[in-house]
Amino acid sequence: MSNSTEFPLIQPEAAAPCCPPLNERPLTSEEAERTAKMFDALGNPIRLRLFSAVASHEGGEACVCDISDVGVSGPTVSHHLKKLKEAGLLSSERRGTWVHYRVEPAVLAAMGQLLTKAAAA
Amino acid sequence: MSNSTEFPLIQPEAAAPCCPPLNERPLTSEEAERTAKMFDALGNPIRLRLFSAVASHEGGEACVCDISDVGVSGPTVSHHLKKLKEAGLLSSERRGTWVHYRVEPAVLAAMGQLLTKAAAA
Repeated sequence: MSNSTEFPLIQPEAAAPCCPPLNERPLTSEEAERTAKMFDALGNPIRLRLFSAVASHEGGEACVCDISDVGVSGPTVSHHLKKLKEAGLLSSERRGTWVHYRVEPAVLAAMGQLLTKAAAA
Repeated sequence: MSNSTEFPLIQPEAAAPCCPPLNERPLTSEEAERTAKMFDALGNPIRLRLFSAVASHEGGEACVCDISDVGVSGPTVSHHLKKLKEAGLLSSERRGTWVHYRVEPAVLAAMGQLLTKAAAA
């Protein structure tokens, strides 16, 4: 059930670390457009709660039925999960009745490195 | 000129790492509200370019006169720099004619740890 290889591969352009650490040089317009989408996806409290609910669930994946308790309607949950997917932070797979979501560690690591390398310098 | 101790201290509640790594447990509503503000500040291409321009400038600080070449008007630059300050990511100080901005490494490190610890697990 929790075999992660069942999940469709995320689009490579979303998963690849796109940009240098933020303190290496000013980002170009294109780099900023791309990177801002990932930060923007986590820049909403509901999305951040949904994301941490998936990330902290066993195996880094969760059924939507396990994570919807964030005080908003089902359609709103779906809308926010879609935005997290579009930003490359989550992948999803339908299993019978329910859609399951999984975090994309490579994307998180790339975002973290943008920040922690900048912080360490 | 670049003595960082000249800068006013950032508000402690903005600089302190507020929250566990995103995969430790679901964030509470309050934690998510606070953390989302920091991600949201970087979730805009213009702000991200301004931020990386300051962070990559010598000493991690820059005069606003050095970083305004991002294709938007002066008032728009000011608006975005204000949002970065409100999120605790930049501090500022007026020196004569110009305002200088400096990155807050502690805040960046805290944000990076939210992501890289989640990615590593």
